[in-house]
Amino acid sequence: MVLKKSMDKIVTLCKTRGFVFPGSDIYGGLANSWDYGPLGVEFKNNVKKAWWKKFVQESPYNVGVDCAILMNPEVWVATGHVGGFSDPLMDCKECKARFRADKLVEDHMTSLGAEVATADGWTNEELKDYLEKNKIVCPKCGKNNFTDIRKFNLMFKTSQGITEDGKSDIYLRPETAQGIFVNFKNVQRASRKKIPFGIGQVGKAFRNEITPGNFIFRTREFEQMELEFFCKPGTDLEWFKYWKEHCASFLYNLGMEKENLRFRDHDKEELSFYSNATCDIEFLFPFGWGELWGIADRTDYDLKKHMEHSGNDLSYLDPMTNEKYVPYCIEPSLGADRVVLAFLVNAYDEEELEGGDVRTVLHLHPALAPFKAAVLPLSKKLSEKSLEVFGMLSKKFNVDYDEAGSIGKRYRREDEIGTPYCITVDFDTLEDNAVTIRDRDTMLQIRVSIDELEKFIEEKLVF
Amino acid sequence: MVLKKSMDKIVTLCKTRGFVFPGSDIYGGLANSWDYGPLGVEFKNNVKKAWWKKFVQESPYNVGVDCAILMNPEVWVATGHVGGFSDPLMDCKECKARFRADKLVEDHMTSLGAEVATADGWTNEELKDYLEKNKIVCPKCGKNNFTDIRKFNLMFKTSQGITEDGKSDIYLRPETAQGIFVNFKNVQRASRKKIPFGIGQVGKAFRNEITPGNFIFRTREFEQMELEFFCKPGTDLEWFKYWKEHCASFLYNLGMEKENLRFRDHDKEELSFYSNATCDIEFLFPFGWGELWGIADRTDYDLKKHMEHSGNDLSYLDPMTNEKYVPYCIEPSLGADRVVLAFLVNAYDEEELEGGDVRTVLHLHPALAPFKAAVLPLSKKLSEKSLEVFGMLSKKFNVDYDEAGSIGKRYRREDEIGTPYCITVDFDTLEDNAVTIRDRDTMLQIRVSIDELEKFIEEKLVF
Repeated sequence: MVLKKSMDKIVTLCKTRGFVFPGSDIYGGLANSWDYGPLGVEFKNNVKKAWWKKFVQESPYNVGVDCAILMNPEVWVATGHVGGFSDPLMDCKECKARFRADKLVEDHMTSLGAEVATADGWTNEELKDYLEKNKIVCPKCGKNNFTDIRKFNLMFKTSQGITEDGKSDIYLRPETAQGIFVNFKNVQRASRKKIPFGIGQVGKAFRNEITPGNFIFRTREFEQMELEFFCKPGTDLEWFKYWKEHCASFLYNLGMEKENLRFRDHDKEELSFYSNATCDIEFLFPFGWGELWGIADRTDYDLKKHMEHSGNDLSYLDPMTNEKYVPYCIEPSLGADRVVLAFLVNAYDEEELEGGDVRTVLHLHPALAPFKAAVLPLSKKLSEKSLEVFGMLSKKFNVDYDEAGSIGKRYRREDEIGTPYCITVDFDTLEDNAVTIRDRDTMLQIRVSIDELEKFIEEKLVF
Repeated sequence: MVLKKSMDKIVTLCKTRGFVFPGSDIYGGLANSWDYGPLGVEFKNNVKKAWWKKFVQESPYNVGVDCAILMNPEVWVATGHVGGFSDPLMDCKECKARFRADKLVEDHMTSLGAEVATADGWTNEELKDYLEKNKIVCPKCGKNNFTDIRKFNLMFKTSQGITEDGKSDIYLRPETAQGIFVNFKNVQRASRKKIPFGIGQVGKAFRNEITPGNFIFRTREFEQMELEFFCKPGTDLEWFKYWKEHCASFLYNLGMEKENLRFRDHDKEELSFYSNATCDIEFLFPFGWGELWGIADRTDYDLKKHMEHSGNDLSYLDPMTNEKYVPYCIEPSLGADRVVLAFLVNAYDEEELEGGDVRTVLHLHPALAPFKAAVLPLSKKLSEKSLEVFGMLSKKFNVDYDEAGSIGKRYRREDEIGTPYCITVDFDTLEDNAVTIRDRDTMLQIRVSIDELEKFIEEKLVF
């Protein structure tokens, strides 16, 4: 079963059907940049809307923000990104290839059968020691002659302002989280929220990775969906559990299969020094397990850093008890492009049909599917009525319209892009004002009155 | 009436109520960057969703894309941005202040009472001549002793890749349009669209302006909503008219008042050399008329530039007539932040009430309002029932919940943020399962069954 889902097949489907194109394609691309096409933008927007619905709109605790990508550079000094957000790189002196030292270590751990292979937070010395002790050689030429390990900062730098003296270096944000921390006080005051409450954000972030790859899994420009949930110290582990379960429900309710997910709690050695608990939700991609969602109890680490560095008091005064404290923070951080890819892989299937034919089908949850329905006139003579149905439905949903080719071919095309309902307008429609709805997953057909169509679809979108 | 709507009042309302905060606020900000707060992100998202609905989802012609901000730099060579996208700057030799020469010219034209003041596309020589002939002096020190005019490129530059030889300069896109042109062929093929058809995109763009200002009207980081509509040469002026009317309807249907808008068709002298027709839709801001929407017939200029530069054939073969041609393109290009500001200004009012009190109110269309409704328990004893109503409604809409202060105070707070419906849960509610709905604009109240609430709100959101 799993073999059906190769990355090649997914990437090809994405390009030919308009989910994802290589970025700047006619100019030969730009290393690992990707553009979302007509289906991809709808699909990704649906994923983002679903997240916003469950993490902001429906939550009695949370509100949202949308902060600028360009921030005062002092933000990144405070967080340590200017000083320490870097990859440990080294070159093979023999063949001149460049590697991430931590990746070589992790690959070696994996080859030894380690369940958890991570060199997160290791110093250059620790990495070097491991490489030497384990006699790790260059994966390209097989020699063992590396340069020292050096750190390369991952932030994209640019400069703003154009007067000679006013020009200043700024960075493209490497994460959306800091826009939230910096606005903690403004948001709390303006929305009159009481602890516990959270602030969510969806937006682009940028990291100058040396090894982007695996399609949209790891890209230099990517989108995050982050929540920072502020709570009273001491209640943090309880809230950590709450949000971990909330994240799991989100994925399951949208159709993620249990065998494709695993929850990896960090043990004490792996935990960041400031974290009380961390869990990675990983998905089984065709290239192996990959992190989707990092859920971390970050204590008061971030707010305190900003208090020290900005000189602003970011503590919270409890209006009931008059207690003053710096809130602890739970951060469930999800990569939008990654989870888009995960939903695609999860939904992809090739099914043998009765006659022996094989159909490719995306079993996407209707809430995520790019088109909620496709309107298919059985004959071109039925265009007028069909466009009337399309016009009515498109006021509420994103709907496809297709009158080219046999009805069977059109079903296949819609299966392949995950359209849950094909609505066929036939000659009886002109008499009974009803249409045939064919279900993508069961392939069963039912007759439904046009007046009931909107409600029929609406109900399927609930999650 | 107009005096009520000062920028100061709008900016203060935005900050105190959580529409828009200064970016990186606790670090003293970053010149003219802004963050959308809890109400602002909902409001702006509603504006973007409304645009997408009317320009992509409901249109039988159009599809969407979402392209990377970082593109192959050759794109910007082809479009002329690398060579020519610059501001003409000059310094006052006396006081060292720096100015945009074209702005000084335009300000002078305006001071002479010119209806249309524009120096768009003027050469350095033309600007210099005008400044000298009109004896224009430094607005800061009053002297007339300027340096020569020099061009400063407006694109933000950064570099990608980290190996010494692999490092390359790239730019943050200065407009979203080029992502569409570059993908014209990919989109056409994947979506099997026939001419005429359009491609829409919403996304961030960046320009290193020397004079950002007027709150979110002109910022270095901004968001665009652009449509590129491809049609057969010769039909372009017809489609230009179509989209111009479509844009106008969009604004009117969402409550924009006629006296706040003007449509400025460019005359021959003002038109870009490649354009067959251009119209600016301008809005009357407290600081004067400002451009909201530029609608341009760009002929085949952009696609031809990319054909020449990339070596790819971007012409279209008409499947019916077998004619081959490079499509013409109509571009309605709207600034998301600008139209957000325009809707705010348009909606802002201060009304004297019967008792002599004044209420501040945002008369936003319900489709745009951050909260569609607010659930207000008349007493804290009614929290349980009220949260039940909130829970039901928040599955469908973004809804506020407020139990602090007198009901009158809560109405005022909701008026000020544009919430169209206040839903009061009182002790009768426990008996009759009904609530009181108070209308923001008329301030009239009606009794509605809780079972009818969802439908009641749903119907008001149609536009």
